[in-house]
Amino acid sequence: MSTPLPLGAWIGIIGGGQLGRMLAIAAARLGYHTVVLEPQGDCPAAQCANRQIIAGYDDAYGLAELADAAAVVTYEFENVPVQAAEALSADVPVWPPARALAVAQDRLTEKRFLNQIGLSTAAFYAVDSDADLADGLAALGGSGLLKTRRLGYDGKGQLLLDAAAGDLQGGGSFAAMGGVPLILEARIPFLREISIIAARGRDGSLAAYDPAENVHRDGILKSATVPAAIPPETAAAARAAATAILEELGYVGVLGVEFFVAPDGTLLVNEIAPRVHNSGHWTEAACAVSQFEQHIRAIAGLPLGAVDRACDCIMENLIGAEIGRTAALLAEPDCVVHVYGKDEVRPGRKMGHFTRLIR
Amino acid sequence: MSTPLPLGAWIGIIGGGQLGRMLAIAAARLGYHTVVLEPQGDCPAAQCANRQIIAGYDDAYGLAELADAAAVVTYEFENVPVQAAEALSADVPVWPPARALAVAQDRLTEKRFLNQIGLSTAAFYAVDSDADLADGLAALGGSGLLKTRRLGYDGKGQLLLDAAAGDLQGGGSFAAMGGVPLILEARIPFLREISIIAARGRDGSLAAYDPAENVHRDGILKSATVPAAIPPETAAAARAAATAILEELGYVGVLGVEFFVAPDGTLLVNEIAPRVHNSGHWTEAACAVSQFEQHIRAIAGLPLGAVDRACDCIMENLIGAEIGRTAALLAEPDCVVHVYGKDEVRPGRKMGHFTRLIR
Repeated sequence: MSTPLPLGAWIGIIGGGQLGRMLAIAAARLGYHTVVLEPQGDCPAAQCANRQIIAGYDDAYGLAELADAAAVVTYEFENVPVQAAEALSADVPVWPPARALAVAQDRLTEKRFLNQIGLSTAAFYAVDSDADLADGLAALGGSGLLKTRRLGYDGKGQLLLDAAAGDLQGGGSFAAMGGVPLILEARIPFLREISIIAARGRDGSLAAYDPAENVHRDGILKSATVPAAIPPETAAAARAAATAILEELGYVGVLGVEFFVAPDGTLLVNEIAPRVHNSGHWTEAACAVSQFEQHIRAIAGLPLGAVDRACDCIMENLIGAEIGRTAALLAEPDCVVHVYGKDEVRPGRKMGHFTRLIR
Repeated sequence: MSTPLPLGAWIGIIGGGQLGRMLAIAAARLGYHTVVLEPQGDCPAAQCANRQIIAGYDDAYGLAELADAAAVVTYEFENVPVQAAEALSADVPVWPPARALAVAQDRLTEKRFLNQIGLSTAAFYAVDSDADLADGLAALGGSGLLKTRRLGYDGKGQLLLDAAAGDLQGGGSFAAMGGVPLILEARIPFLREISIIAARGRDGSLAAYDPAENVHRDGILKSATVPAAIPPETAAAARAAATAILEELGYVGVLGVEFFVAPDGTLLVNEIAPRVHNSGHWTEAACAVSQFEQHIRAIAGLPLGAVDRACDCIMENLIGAEIGRTAALLAEPDCVVHVYGKDEVRPGRKMGHFTRLIR
C-alpha cells in the first residue's frame, strides 16, 4: 500500500467536459490541485481546475507535460487512447488502469471480457463485412442492433435492423456505417434499465451505491431514479457483477455498469464505463460523498466514503434547450440544480442536470 | 425587478480566501463564471474561479478591470474599502450594498445602527483616548472588552480589562492598542452564543436557516451545532433581528448575525457579517441549497432556495495543524470534509472544516 496523495498534490484529468468539471470541484474540496488535458480551451472542466494543458488526448508533448505536472492521472471519458494511457503509466500512476480503457472502448472486447468472467450480455456477432452481417442477422432471426465497436456514445453510431421492416439481409449496412469494425447485438426485451456506480480503492476496498433505474430518450440518458424498482436479489446481482469487473481489472476509481433487467429478472450487462457516470449524478445531492469525491478518494489512496443516501431521488438531465428550465427548477424546494458552464446550447448536448429529493 | 443574471455571466468576487472559493464553486454549479480580485496570486478562491485579477482591494486599476469584467460584484469579507465598493457601484451592481460594509466594518457604527433599529447589544463606549477609557471603565464597574473599532477579526485587536485584575483605570491601554479608534464593550454574561444565516433576494424575498450554536476557542470559531439548544421563541427572535437588518440595509445576499443569549433568554447582537459566514458552513452538508449557493442566487436575481435541512449536524473548523485530522475524518461515515487548498499551515489559520451529520 502506498501512502495517500498529500494535501495540495496535483491530479491530472484527461478530458474537459462536465464529468471532469465535477471531478475538479471534488478534488478541490479535498485540498488537491487539478490540471486538465483537453484540446478545447476554456472547457467546462478547466473553468473549475487550477490549470489546463491545451493539447489533444494523444499529443505526446501534452501528455509529457501532464505526467510532469501531476502526481496521479485519471480521465473523464473512455475514449482516451490506450497507448496514451500506457505511455503515461510509465511516468505517473494512471487510474483506472489502461486495461479498463482497452476493455471499455471496444464493444466486442467488452462483451467478450464480460462473458469470460461469467457475466451475461446480449448475444453478439463481430461484423467486419456485409457477409458477417448477413450471417449474424440470420442467427438473430433478422433483427438486431448494429453498432460501431468504437467511439459510440449517447446512441451515436447505432443502427436498428428490424426483420419486420425488411432488413433481413442488412445489405449495404456495413458500408453505410463507414466500413469500420462493427458489432451486431441481439435486441433485448427488457423490463427496465438499471445501472450501478461502484468504486474500488487502492487498498482493494469496495463500495457501491444503490442501483438507479434509468430512462433513455433518443439514446441519451434522460433520468435516473433511486431506488430502482427491483427486488433485493437483483440489486445484489448488480453489486456482484460490478465487484467482479472491478477485481478482474485490478481497478482503482469509480466504475459505472449499465444493465438490462430481463423479463425473468436476470441481468444482462449492457456496457461498462471506466469513469464517473451520468446515472450517478444523484449521489452529489443525496449522499454525503458523491461519486466524484469517491473517485478522487479512490485514486488518491484515501478511504472510500459511505454510500448510503439520505433520501430517495430522481435525477434528470437538462439536454439542449431544456437548460431553459433552470430558473423554474431553482424555485422548487428539494431540488439540487447543477449547470455545466457550456456557453453554446446545442440539440442533444448535456447542459446540466437536477436532482429532486424525495423526503 | 431586473431580470436574473443570464447563464454564463461573470460574477466578480472581492477577496480570495476560502469563502470566495466556496462562492466560486457555487457560482460554477449554477453556470456562472467568476473573476476574483485579490492581491495574493493563486489564492484559494482563484483556484476554483475562472480568472483572477491580482490587485489590492483598493487598487483603482484592478477595480476598474473588475467592473469591466463582471456583471455583478460581491465580496467575501467585510473589510473591503467602502470607497472602493461605492466607486464600483457606479459601474456595476455591488451586492451586498456598500452601506452594509460601512456598518459592519466599524464596531461603533455597527452597534449604533443595531440599537437604532431596536436591537439590543452590549453596552458600549467610544474610546479615543485614555480619558475616554477611564470614563467607560468607571461606567462599567471597571471591566470590559476593549476592541479596535475596525479591522478586528477572529479575536484579534481585543483586550480584556478586568477590575479584579487591577485594570480599573486601563491606563496606557489606548496607546497600547495602537492609538486607533477603539470601543469599550461591557462583558456579557451569556448562556450560549448563536448565529443565524439569512438572505434577502433582489425581489425582497427572505430566507433564514435555523440558528446554529457556536463555540469559540482563542477567539476563533471552533464549532457550530444545529439546532442550537434554544426555545422556538429565541430562534424566532434571531430570525426577526436578521430580517430587520436585511430590510433596513436594503440588503441583497447572505448575512451572518452573531448573538449572545443572555441568562434571561434575551438576545444581544454581537456582530454582523455582510457575507457568507463560517457558522453557516454546515448548510453545504445538510441542506439542498448551501449558504454559498443562496448568496449567488440572491445577487444573481434568482429565487432563494429552501432553507430546511435534511438532518441535524455539527460543523467543526480545522485550524492550523488540525488539518492533519483529515485522513481520519474521511474514514468516518456521515462526515462531509472540506479542505481549502492553502499550501501553508499556520497556527490559527483556517485550513478546512468538516460537518458530522446526525441521522
